[in-house]
Amino acid sequence: MTNSYASSACAHLSEVFAHDIPLTAALAVQVCAWDGLSLHLKLPLGQNLNHQSSMFGGSLYCAGVLACWGWLHLRLRDAGINTTHIVVQAGHIDYPLPVLADAEVICAAPDAAVWERFFKMYQRHGKARISLSSRILTHDGQDGACFTGQFVLHS
Amino acid sequence: MTNSYASSACAHLSEVFAHDIPLTAALAVQVCAWDGLSLHLKLPLGQNLNHQSSMFGGSLYCAGVLACWGWLHLRLRDAGINTTHIVVQAGHIDYPLPVLADAEVICAAPDAAVWERFFKMYQRHGKARISLSSRILTHDGQDGACFTGQFVLHS
Repeated sequence: MTNSYASSACAHLSEVFAHDIPLTAALAVQVCAWDGLSLHLKLPLGQNLNHQSSMFGGSLYCAGVLACWGWLHLRLRDAGINTTHIVVQAGHIDYPLPVLADAEVICAAPDAAVWERFFKMYQRHGKARISLSSRILTHDGQDGACFTGQFVLHS
Repeated sequence: MTNSYASSACAHLSEVFAHDIPLTAALAVQVCAWDGLSLHLKLPLGQNLNHQSSMFGGSLYCAGVLACWGWLHLRLRDAGINTTHIVVQAGHIDYPLPVLADAEVICAAPDAAVWERFFKMYQRHGKARISLSSRILTHDGQDGACFTGQFVLHS
């Protein structure tokens, strides 16, 4: 992966977020890195504070779902499919630790076999479902929140 | 319950949201009704659009968690405990139908026995956990999203 490939993908996803999901501006979520396997976002604390001066649980969920949605969008784009026909069907989030600073949000690739099955299903039937997970890290790299969602891609 | 009781509670919760959770301004969530048993919020579509011109799944989650958090805050306030020491430990949301218009968000009281157990636990130990659910309705009153969260109250 070249640097220009990565920065072009990040700029593209930033535009999709800004254009299609206006709340991303209020969340101030930033697209930081994409290497073809992992997507890294950043969620600043200031705009996303709660009543205890830590990160609002709703903002953490938004960051988790955006990381997975963005991962799927970029992974499909790399496979030649430029689509936003991706919807979340269900989401679950655990909050093991409070997030007290700007947070890194990471969605890593699922097992290769999971991806292959999903991709073949989509090519055959025009519709497929995949489970994706993301983590929101505390300032010292521990899991502040762990998100898992079921995503459906349709043609 | 008198009208002034209800409107005072709604004004109070609106202030708590505005003061403590700045993202609620961007969500444009409104506190509509509280009768001592159910809390009704409103989530407008405009500020919460996604790439398919329906409600963003992250916004729906935020509305769901705010309805339950607000329900617990107001219910405790009615019981003489004015606290914001309430945190969400985990949340789950299903999205059975797209939400295509401004949405009503409802958190109804759990079973009386569940509340009594929670309240006694808090009085005895200064800490207690409760599961609360909320629904986000489509324009024709069907479930667009169903949220359930585990909330912890501590003294």
